[in-house]
Amino acid sequence: MVKEIMADTLVTDEKGAKILLAEIIHTDYLFAYIGRIIYGKTGLQNIYVFENNFWGRMLFINNGLQFTSRDEFIYHEALVHIPVQASPENSIKRVLICGGGDYGASRELLKYPQIEEVIIVDIDPQIPKIVEEYFPELLPKNPKDPRLKLIVADAYEMVKEYKEKKQLFDMVIIDSTDPDITITGVTHELSHALFGEDFHQMLYEICPKGIIVQQCGTPFTMKNILVETYKTFKKVYPEKEIYCYRANVPSFGGDNAYLMRCPYPNPEIPKWEEIPNTYYYTHEIHKTSFGLPKYWREVLK
Amino acid sequence: MVKEIMADTLVTDEKGAKILLAEIIHTDYLFAYIGRIIYGKTGLQNIYVFENNFWGRMLFINNGLQFTSRDEFIYHEALVHIPVQASPENSIKRVLICGGGDYGASRELLKYPQIEEVIIVDIDPQIPKIVEEYFPELLPKNPKDPRLKLIVADAYEMVKEYKEKKQLFDMVIIDSTDPDITITGVTHELSHALFGEDFHQMLYEICPKGIIVQQCGTPFTMKNILVETYKTFKKVYPEKEIYCYRANVPSFGGDNAYLMRCPYPNPEIPKWEEIPNTYYYTHEIHKTSFGLPKYWREVLK
Repeated sequence: MVKEIMADTLVTDEKGAKILLAEIIHTDYLFAYIGRIIYGKTGLQNIYVFENNFWGRMLFINNGLQFTSRDEFIYHEALVHIPVQASPENSIKRVLICGGGDYGASRELLKYPQIEEVIIVDIDPQIPKIVEEYFPELLPKNPKDPRLKLIVADAYEMVKEYKEKKQLFDMVIIDSTDPDITITGVTHELSHALFGEDFHQMLYEICPKGIIVQQCGTPFTMKNILVETYKTFKKVYPEKEIYCYRANVPSFGGDNAYLMRCPYPNPEIPKWEEIPNTYYYTHEIHKTSFGLPKYWREVLK
Repeated sequence: MVKEIMADTLVTDEKGAKILLAEIIHTDYLFAYIGRIIYGKTGLQNIYVFENNFWGRMLFINNGLQFTSRDEFIYHEALVHIPVQASPENSIKRVLICGGGDYGASRELLKYPQIEEVIIVDIDPQIPKIVEEYFPELLPKNPKDPRLKLIVADAYEMVKEYKEKKQLFDMVIIDSTDPDITITGVTHELSHALFGEDFHQMLYEICPKGIIVQQCGTPFTMKNILVETYKTFKKVYPEKEIYCYRANVPSFGGDNAYLMRCPYPNPEIPKWEEIPNTYYYTHEIHKTSFGLPKYWREVLK
């Protein structure tokens, strides 16, 4: 019975049929959703859109949940507003998003009129198209905002090019799928290179004075991503410039971790004016996002 | 197929057989666990103990997960150390726990040598017995600690008696199952009365000068418990003495909410010395537990 409901087997189901979709969270622990697959395709990555009464629409990539209509705002607001507001006021003009083809991070960045240019570099051309059709709420308020540029390319190669051309950014956001997680049997994720030392060495060169922030999964069920990424950060950035913060994204099954290289003091103090059009982020939540449970602190030693 | 795996049908399964257990979190959204029911009995409440590779042992009451071996420490440490440490140093001698027959809250309280008496009043005699046998890690370090008293009785009636006898407490903890949640079809929970105005009026009399703290479920999936309990608190306690804090308990599927009546200023500042034998709680996490997401603040207006 268990095997029958594994997500792997579901993309072959007829679209429109109501099914029980199971997502493997850990050994013998699954999330199950009743609903319909309304889009499913295997290209560079195996992608489907699922419709569920509670979560609304859900995007799965390689059988891992990326976001839901109901709580993506938490993930994206924490990813963007905390590093922006930790930077000196009005200091951010030009931002690079590695991954983030779902537009969510760009939607948040473009809420600041002070930000002049946002470049998304995502490897998979399917993602922006799916979001435009199935998740229009993730698009920036003005979907044709002239400040936004979308490039379909491997972020690793693109960053190499920016480095060679000495193009600089005020902030870099790495908004990718989780890297290899052996427990689920996934052996290759396109995002793998974006968690490596080489990549961060290049980011340091194209963003020498700004914040570099990376999403690091849900440590309670996948501690290795945070621990390994922290090791990478320590190899590349000064230790006193490395900070970890968190946000509870309920559909991920626990607090999501974000690692940040921040050269400015006291990142827990927000520096910009509070903006009104958020649903998770406030200056109050900013100040408290850097408080970590003891069992997280212990793995970050 | 969905019906087959509902938890309701499982208590009749043969013990020891490996099964897929599903817990209804919300409409069409379930958590599923592969493992074995190692204890199952219907008395005052429908109770079973489930063994799972990831979570360890899990206690279910009326098909709702109460705690797991793997993350109960978060729930219990947040429930106890935040109110204790928000009180003036060494001010707590006598504590009443309404519910809490699983011993977890008492285990945390008894870590403070300054606390002289802890009384647990739980209605269900099954719970302490099950914990003694299946979850010995929830027992206080010294299970025969002379400071601890366990009374099997209805906390509502017992509090009435304390009130009539003018017995006072320095702190009251309400550590119960979640009250009625219509979505799952549960129509009666024994804990219901512990969320009412009458009960809190009596608590105010037996604990006029101390903290009264109540667990309020997981607002993301059951917002009504927090909202309704907040209304009750506002009817009974001065509004400026009401605080909400949170802790991420991954097995609950999101942040758990705690409401606290606290007559002391600045509860977000810990007042006691930090104790070493915790796994979640630190003064760092204390200070940041009162920061709430914007969408929580909005329902607490």
